[in-house]
Amino acid sequence: MPDFSRIPYQRQLSGNPKGCSVPANLREATEAIAGVSPYLRGPYATMYAHRPWTLRQYAGFATADKSNQFYKQNLAMGQRGLSVAFDLPTHKGYDSDHPNVIGDVGQAGVAIDSVEDVKALFQGIPLDKVSVSMTMNGAVIPILAFFILAAEETGVSAHALTGTIQNDILKEFITRNTYIYPPRASMRIVRDVFTYLSAHMPRFNSISISGYHMHEAGAPAAMELAYTLANGITYLEEGLKAGLSFERFVPRFSFFWGIGMKYFDEIAKLRAARVLWSALIRPYVKGKIPPLRAHAQTSGWSLTAQEPLNNIARTCIEALAALGGHTQSLHTNAWDEALALPSPESARIARNTQLHLQHETHIKHIVDPWGGSYFVEEKTNEIQRQARAYLKEIAAHGGMLAAIEAGIPKQRIEAEAAKRQARIDAGEEVRIGVNHLINEKRAYSPANLQHIDTSAVIRNQTKRIQQIKANRNNERVQQALHRLSEGCQHPKANVLALALEAARHRATLGEISYAMEVVFGRYRPTKQVLTGLYAKHSTMKKETEQVRRLCVRFEKQCGRRPRLLMAKLGLDGHDRGYQVLASTYADLGFDVDLSPLFQMPKEVARQAVQHDVHVIGISSLAGAHLTLIPQLIRELHQLGRSDMTVVAGGIIPAKDHDQLHQAGVQFIFGPGTIIPKAAQQMMTYLLNKHT
Amino acid sequence: MPDFSRIPYQRQLSGNPKGCSVPANLREATEAIAGVSPYLRGPYATMYAHRPWTLRQYAGFATADKSNQFYKQNLAMGQRGLSVAFDLPTHKGYDSDHPNVIGDVGQAGVAIDSVEDVKALFQGIPLDKVSVSMTMNGAVIPILAFFILAAEETGVSAHALTGTIQNDILKEFITRNTYIYPPRASMRIVRDVFTYLSAHMPRFNSISISGYHMHEAGAPAAMELAYTLANGITYLEEGLKAGLSFERFVPRFSFFWGIGMKYFDEIAKLRAARVLWSALIRPYVKGKIPPLRAHAQTSGWSLTAQEPLNNIARTCIEALAALGGHTQSLHTNAWDEALALPSPESARIARNTQLHLQHETHIKHIVDPWGGSYFVEEKTNEIQRQARAYLKEIAAHGGMLAAIEAGIPKQRIEAEAAKRQARIDAGEEVRIGVNHLINEKRAYSPANLQHIDTSAVIRNQTKRIQQIKANRNNERVQQALHRLSEGCQHPKANVLALALEAARHRATLGEISYAMEVVFGRYRPTKQVLTGLYAKHSTMKKETEQVRRLCVRFEKQCGRRPRLLMAKLGLDGHDRGYQVLASTYADLGFDVDLSPLFQMPKEVARQAVQHDVHVIGISSLAGAHLTLIPQLIRELHQLGRSDMTVVAGGIIPAKDHDQLHQAGVQFIFGPGTIIPKAAQQMMTYLLNKHT
Repeated sequence: MPDFSRIPYQRQLSGNPKGCSVPANLREATEAIAGVSPYLRGPYATMYAHRPWTLRQYAGFATADKSNQFYKQNLAMGQRGLSVAFDLPTHKGYDSDHPNVIGDVGQAGVAIDSVEDVKALFQGIPLDKVSVSMTMNGAVIPILAFFILAAEETGVSAHALTGTIQNDILKEFITRNTYIYPPRASMRIVRDVFTYLSAHMPRFNSISISGYHMHEAGAPAAMELAYTLANGITYLEEGLKAGLSFERFVPRFSFFWGIGMKYFDEIAKLRAARVLWSALIRPYVKGKIPPLRAHAQTSGWSLTAQEPLNNIARTCIEALAALGGHTQSLHTNAWDEALALPSPESARIARNTQLHLQHETHIKHIVDPWGGSYFVEEKTNEIQRQARAYLKEIAAHGGMLAAIEAGIPKQRIEAEAAKRQARIDAGEEVRIGVNHLINEKRAYSPANLQHIDTSAVIRNQTKRIQQIKANRNNERVQQALHRLSEGCQHPKANVLALALEAARHRATLGEISYAMEVVFGRYRPTKQVLTGLYAKHSTMKKETEQVRRLCVRFEKQCGRRPRLLMAKLGLDGHDRGYQVLASTYADLGFDVDLSPLFQMPKEVARQAVQHDVHVIGISSLAGAHLTLIPQLIRELHQLGRSDMTVVAGGIIPAKDHDQLHQAGVQFIFGPGTIIPKAAQQMMTYLLNKHT
Repeated sequence: MPDFSRIPYQRQLSGNPKGCSVPANLREATEAIAGVSPYLRGPYATMYAHRPWTLRQYAGFATADKSNQFYKQNLAMGQRGLSVAFDLPTHKGYDSDHPNVIGDVGQAGVAIDSVEDVKALFQGIPLDKVSVSMTMNGAVIPILAFFILAAEETGVSAHALTGTIQNDILKEFITRNTYIYPPRASMRIVRDVFTYLSAHMPRFNSISISGYHMHEAGAPAAMELAYTLANGITYLEEGLKAGLSFERFVPRFSFFWGIGMKYFDEIAKLRAARVLWSALIRPYVKGKIPPLRAHAQTSGWSLTAQEPLNNIARTCIEALAALGGHTQSLHTNAWDEALALPSPESARIARNTQLHLQHETHIKHIVDPWGGSYFVEEKTNEIQRQARAYLKEIAAHGGMLAAIEAGIPKQRIEAEAAKRQARIDAGEEVRIGVNHLINEKRAYSPANLQHIDTSAVIRNQTKRIQQIKANRNNERVQQALHRLSEGCQHPKANVLALALEAARHRATLGEISYAMEVVFGRYRPTKQVLTGLYAKHSTMKKETEQVRRLCVRFEKQCGRRPRLLMAKLGLDGHDRGYQVLASTYADLGFDVDLSPLFQMPKEVARQAVQHDVHVIGISSLAGAHLTLIPQLIRELHQLGRSDMTVVAGGIIPAKDHDQLHQAGVQFIFGPGTIIPKAAQQMMTYLLNKHT
């Protein structure tokens, strides 16, 4: 046994430079201090050691009562703030009894029609103590009005309210599509929210500028970063134009990042964001530069329907990246979200992942573990450089609003999504269980997926709306709504203040939204199919060539190429999938029409008949498939075109497949489908059918 | 919109020192290079970028056939090496038809009795291509003999075999308890393995020096590190004494670490291990210092039976730590292992966690992401400093073998385990779902836990043993076994070579082990109860005081303190739980006897009667509870002491509770029980019963 007390300590390596060998490009990192601008090493000096990140799980379950119950459970079990998910009709400014919303009510979150619903949503929750985050953009005015009023009527003044309203309309035009009004009218609404909140709700964050949805739509880290910060500067200038001082509203800006599986890119993105934002706002600041504060959410796109329990590990990896980048709050996705909306049970497991990290690992005690890491510091610099290049392009287009109107950011993101799909289809980017090591038997397919009975929610909400309308002074309501419409025409009026008065008289969400729509109009974007990108980046030459040959053979037999209408039904605005599919099928030799978003089954059927298509492809991601797809097929039948082939894809639980097939759906393609293979299957069927 | 092209890059912070500001104590880290001694930044220059870590999942399922099937599936699904788990009778050198092993056969891994079982185990697997790791220490001689012979009889020469035999007997005496012979005889066996393998199996790792079991028994990072490296040096000196040259066997040493939830401690431990090992072996090396190579496994102790799906996230966090520390191969635990042995389905999900990290995150492309991190580099130094202090203590005791014989490392680890239990019981160390945020309804309790029908496995193995014995030349077998016994008495003979000859004639594992046992003897350690530690570190003063008062009241009523016999039954050597319980109950005022390990029900019953105890506490972690606990109660009945209270704890699935209660078990305490609360419950019952 050697004398252990005499083991030499690690010797100096010979041949290496003596003294300091930190590369010159990392010197800045070496000197950075957490809590000091530009906040590379964290927005606060003591970070989680003093105050751990906030567990903020985004959730909403069909009705206000059911959501309220879930929130209370979560608060009892260690959650520190609430985050409300609304259903699509609420986002788009429709009441639950509107004819266009059948199928979507209560599906993706809670249905809110009036202040009474908001009161039920927070019943028994002290709004002066619990911070509330609300993911609302399109219908931000009625929702904020209801929230302020609900607090007031339960004895909490607006001054005491804490939380965040998303209120980030620009990214809706880039990717998320839950806008109501056109871009410039929407910006006026944002401005009115800033001025109202800075005057009456000083502790409430008036905007959460979101990269998340760009991330989910396919934007790489630097692109998500650049466009989000550019949006931030646009809001900042909008507020200044409205006469607010920088100190009055900008320090309450909050950012929202998506966190995917590119571990180091995500850590570097969050660190780079603070540095770049510090640089961007410097020209506007007189005193101390406020730090960029962030919320983060793990990626829904990275989850797979195949072997869904795998998603717990994916989400955990992403959570660790978000914390390595110093997020102030975090949402972790549930493992069954690629199959359905999360159940209360799966949401628990998701939340617990954060609790393990917070209480069992000790990571919260370290202010900046990645500080000094040669690789992460260099990666942080690299992401900054790339983001600056995107920012220059936006500036060259005259700023973000102009660039959005020209469709620049949208196109850049869609191109990235198509490229990535080509790489995934070809197996160059690996997704375990999807394109690599596929398990035919899916292990532990969940038994109790969340299922929403839309018609029951509609009945319930309709009854509540009827009660409210029966008990209010209708004349006062109409007067208040009229004043709101007038206010929309006068830039000096504050639409939130006017909506609050209408809400006080029990105007509904749909009524308030419509009063604004009559002035602003409803935004209906046109859609175009990007071509050439999938083909360019795909290495599945053999498979794509095969599909093209089948298309040519079809043309010889039928006189024209197979024609496909790609559509979405109802209010579901998740358009990454259907855009990518349209581009890909076009590249594979199909004649592709892309239906506008937000069409009802009747409209899509009419469009299909007008274009005399062979196939209608429906992408459904918001849970309304059982209502809207059979309705589409009935509409086709009424138009005498039952012969058209209907294909469905998206998030469609296996238990719903039979019902859809019985209704007449020919193929159902789930998440992870390799597109050329699906196309081949479809063409074989069509060739057989049309000869 | 500002001109984005003119945003200044991050400015130098004023007031900070110019130039290099790397703290002096981190300079060495700054200059370290991966692949160069002392290997701080990784054992290889290109690390996972060139060759990703090996997914090596440890598994064995009752019979050779069933295990073979599982191995083949795993090889088809991306696993690169096999790792065999044996059942306890195999570890302890007993054939499956031995009377002492009823209850344990096939429970914790595969049952192996002869070379035919090993041939079945690897049927259809090319042993010249797939590396095989075998966790075997006690019965290393017959198992290696069978393995070599099975390869030979299927046309693969020993020279072509790759893999690892654990062969680390020292840590068995410290914590794991699957030894057969006393320490010094065991070391002779290790030496014979070294010499045989270095001559005949040059590509096979002759030892895997394991900190894992110390980690699981409660050793903090620096303690696990110090004792494991000290064991390594002891083996090194043993090999040199046997006449091997350093270059011949030490470069094939492999280390095995446990990875728990103390994220940064684990990363730092693996980095510190390489540096410290380089320093320790320097005096023995003439040429280049070989790097420490490591396997790692996530912690079983960190898993919870409560909300078991949570364990997927825990395991993922631990896996990321192991990779941050540059492990060469990794085992990730399954989420249901706190409830039962893993099922093939849960094992898949565990393996997939590694696949996500390897294929979906890009982390493998970075040689040393933590390199340069101020915090991790400093933590690495700190762990080294602490480990050096433990090494000095061992050296002061005259080296590791002497320290083990004096019980030093065992006591140090047990003391840490008792301290930790006190902190957990008091809620100072948080375990989500166990002592914090407990969910009464367990979400997603697994439906299909692995269940082994022991008696079916015994019937099957007994038939195979009978066939072998019927078809062999018994005289030759006896001669070969006799030569083996003789060889054990002559230090120059090689027991592995002699065992190989016996195996060739179809001697069984039990026969080979017994031929050695008649010379070496069987090791039977004594057990002692450590007192005072739990009481010292517990802050649950109120609860512990209450239990003590109940004990005093019992003494007044019955004339003596409540007397408890803590025991384990059969071959289950997992003694952390029962040691900690014995210490804690003693501190709470009980009169505690600790039964030796490896007792059959009859022996424990006799001991209980001799000591006239009030309660027998059985800790069961190896799955034999349904066989052995009812048998214990029958033995008590035959001795006329059915009145004794029997309590069970450990890994006992809920579905077995009824059967145990019906057999007469009074209380069943699962993992996560707060001990003072259980003691209170037990005392209330005893007070009532004995008055």
